[in-house]
Amino acid sequence: MSDNLSQLKTRMALISRLGQTSALLDWDQQTYMPKGAAESRSEHSAAMRQVTHEMFTAQETGNLLANSENDLKGQDPDADDVRMLAVLRHDFDRETKLPAELVSEIARHTSLSQEIWIKARKTNDFAYFAPALDKMIDLSLRQAEYLGYEDHVYDALLDAYEIGAKQRDVAVMFADMKPYLVELTRAIADSSNPVDDSPIRGNFPVDQQKQLTLQIVSAIGYDTDRGRQDEAAHPFCTNFSRDDVRITTRYNPEFLNQAVYASMHEAGHAMYEQGSPPEYEATFLSGGVSLGVHESQSRLWENQVGRSRSFSKFVLPKLKSAFPASLAEVDPEAYYRAVNKVTPSLIRVEADEVTYNLHILMRFELECDLLTKTLAVKDLPEAWNAKMTEYLGIRPETDADGVLQDIHWSCGLVAYFPTYSIGNLLSAQLWNAASKSILDIDEKIERGEFAPLLNWLRENVHKYGRKYLPGELIKKATGEPLSSKYYMEYLNKKYSDIYSL
Amino acid sequence: MSDNLSQLKTRMALISRLGQTSALLDWDQQTYMPKGAAESRSEHSAAMRQVTHEMFTAQETGNLLANSENDLKGQDPDADDVRMLAVLRHDFDRETKLPAELVSEIARHTSLSQEIWIKARKTNDFAYFAPALDKMIDLSLRQAEYLGYEDHVYDALLDAYEIGAKQRDVAVMFADMKPYLVELTRAIADSSNPVDDSPIRGNFPVDQQKQLTLQIVSAIGYDTDRGRQDEAAHPFCTNFSRDDVRITTRYNPEFLNQAVYASMHEAGHAMYEQGSPPEYEATFLSGGVSLGVHESQSRLWENQVGRSRSFSKFVLPKLKSAFPASLAEVDPEAYYRAVNKVTPSLIRVEADEVTYNLHILMRFELECDLLTKTLAVKDLPEAWNAKMTEYLGIRPETDADGVLQDIHWSCGLVAYFPTYSIGNLLSAQLWNAASKSILDIDEKIERGEFAPLLNWLRENVHKYGRKYLPGELIKKATGEPLSSKYYMEYLNKKYSDIYSL
Repeated sequence: MSDNLSQLKTRMALISRLGQTSALLDWDQQTYMPKGAAESRSEHSAAMRQVTHEMFTAQETGNLLANSENDLKGQDPDADDVRMLAVLRHDFDRETKLPAELVSEIARHTSLSQEIWIKARKTNDFAYFAPALDKMIDLSLRQAEYLGYEDHVYDALLDAYEIGAKQRDVAVMFADMKPYLVELTRAIADSSNPVDDSPIRGNFPVDQQKQLTLQIVSAIGYDTDRGRQDEAAHPFCTNFSRDDVRITTRYNPEFLNQAVYASMHEAGHAMYEQGSPPEYEATFLSGGVSLGVHESQSRLWENQVGRSRSFSKFVLPKLKSAFPASLAEVDPEAYYRAVNKVTPSLIRVEADEVTYNLHILMRFELECDLLTKTLAVKDLPEAWNAKMTEYLGIRPETDADGVLQDIHWSCGLVAYFPTYSIGNLLSAQLWNAASKSILDIDEKIERGEFAPLLNWLRENVHKYGRKYLPGELIKKATGEPLSSKYYMEYLNKKYSDIYSL
Repeated sequence: MSDNLSQLKTRMALISRLGQTSALLDWDQQTYMPKGAAESRSEHSAAMRQVTHEMFTAQETGNLLANSENDLKGQDPDADDVRMLAVLRHDFDRETKLPAELVSEIARHTSLSQEIWIKARKTNDFAYFAPALDKMIDLSLRQAEYLGYEDHVYDALLDAYEIGAKQRDVAVMFADMKPYLVELTRAIADSSNPVDDSPIRGNFPVDQQKQLTLQIVSAIGYDTDRGRQDEAAHPFCTNFSRDDVRITTRYNPEFLNQAVYASMHEAGHAMYEQGSPPEYEATFLSGGVSLGVHESQSRLWENQVGRSRSFSKFVLPKLKSAFPASLAEVDPEAYYRAVNKVTPSLIRVEADEVTYNLHILMRFELECDLLTKTLAVKDLPEAWNAKMTEYLGIRPETDADGVLQDIHWSCGLVAYFPTYSIGNLLSAQLWNAASKSILDIDEKIERGEFAPLLNWLRENVHKYGRKYLPGELIKKATGEPLSSKYYMEYLNKKYSDIYSL
């Protein structure tokens, strides 16, 4: 290995470890941190962000990177080291464009505005949150100007989550799906064979749910020796190495759906990180390549697996043994129908597979309007409610159930939402490819044999870490570029059957 | 404020926040970290240590410090800023006097010798640990030479934990106490009125202990909005700011003593940190001034308060309502006697108030002998056992229960033990001063009125942070230098009564 490359790797390892330490600050903030600690925590995050940013963007990093690129000229373009330099070049260029003051201002504001958002949602007080959001939009725009973009200001921000993706492509993706989704939602509402979800409503004590969800995520392949599950208001997955990948969930004692599928969703994310190659650890090649690809993993386990007929047959006996009283009379078909009920609803994270992408679509449109200043923050609640009415036919009665429901904007995650829809589409596309490759996949799932599917994902997605761009990876794994075709086919087949359309 | 001072403060704030972030890594490791994460966690800690050390010892820190000292020449020597510079000068000189090679050799050897110690204790094999301890003593001596000292090599090391303290003073402190403690221990063993601790042995489910201990520490003044209590194998207190001070405890389902007094002990530490002035936050003046003064806070709440007759009357109804079956027949006097049982025992961390300081005394004597080469490491077990026999009248059957019981020496914590005794002495001295100032303190405690005592500690100890040297602080708070007199009086009065001596 060249001396430059070796020094660069040492430096990157140090920076990776600092980044993972910052992630622990966030995990703690959302799980166990006492409420009085919010202000000091924002200082910790800002300090870590500042130090990491300074070290990453230092002249020395740039020199080592340039020298390493020079040393590796002419080598196999597919070699890990060459790819690592390409990934690093992308991240380095992105981060060196931002002045340190802006970076730490964003970090500090992010931590504070999160706390403001929590309070605002609790008290249903959008006006209390508005100035923080206004500042966040402003900080995002300032960030985008430093980063630069060709077509749309949105591109500069989206690239952080979905490298190489463009606002225009997202707009096309939604244009493909929107009429179909609105139409399907209406057809389901008019169905003569409606779904009854009372089987999964009842009395489900939280302590048993904790045990049960851990049992389920362990069964599908989440390694609890290298992770743990805790409770959080907004379920998430985070990791501090491939050997410490944590998930969170939330429990509704009267509705089984929530924790079971939130846990499976986060476990899908977690298994991606746990499957990152050990030799990529603390290099810039480790972990997930993009949020869209990440979301494809979580959605695949949550939906294509978790909300299938075969999984219903597998999981129901476990659910019955945890909650014998509530589930005694339920059969697998009734459970399957119940967990696939489609209803236009106010809350994105509780939305079914059909309406979910409409929630994302409206967020995408609103973000574009906020960033192009065609919509003012103060008018956001009304714009939100108007779109809810247009796309889903329902209107939130409170902002807490409307524009204040998501944590994202308070965390500075602007232009992040489309990655959820990319993930949904890709989950169906990957499932289609995996099903062709794995013999009798449904029967295997029914028997609780999840390893073949996990191994297929390990081999076709996880093992590459960040080595390939999302578009390259998708083509490698499925033989074609990302397409909305498989997701629409999947919805069509599944819901025509359930709702007798 | 001078420009130098202002820049220095910004730099120190950043370094403080990094240090607090490292503390979160440790807290997590000892509470919630999954077992597979140990290796990656050591990388996080090493990365944080490296970055923090480099930033603290950088030329720029030294320049800003020297310039600030120059700028502040002639100012009130009691001003916060002047005192802050003195504290910083002490820490900076200490950290920069050691050559980088020695620092990294100590770090390497520390992590190695800890692993060796764990194995040696498990297999009861002192010979396996001896070479590592030998090297640790040698490294400590080399460190002391670089740090410098006037009278005794011990002083250079002790200064890291108890700034300004001298071996000679510690020797005098123990010389005062030793004959008295040995005699008192013997008299208690021969007492015709022995203590029965069966009232606090029984069946105490852990879930109720969790609720109960939290209720107790809240009652005495620990602010759970700015802290939390978790479970850990070895109870500790840590903080990531004055607004996030966390404690841990451990539960023995058959012995109530353990969790109740571990929680009160750690809450004593925690209230000291929570009482650090907000304006000192993230400066080098925040937090506790020394380990001895810190220990005085934990011991005062654990012993002078927690193991008093008046507290027994206050707390017993709460204990009874948590454990009605086990405690139905117990009255406050029986409880009071049970939690004050004195028995010579092999293990320091389980020792009672009377014998505890004898455990420390022998460690101090042995450390002095090792550092002055009057005792060879190979002869340490025999020396240990001889002192146990002489001071406590019992002899360990294994080195695991003897010389190998403490982690300290394997971690390079040489000259650390005396701070425990300083804390014990000071707890009685502070209690004496507080009792004179607070009217009817015992009656107040019996009624659950802890605020007057906490306020007295806030006013006389906590509010100064690290502003004064421990010796100065003790004189300010109690009117005289540290003395063993109050501790001996306290033991004498209490145990003459309990054991009818």
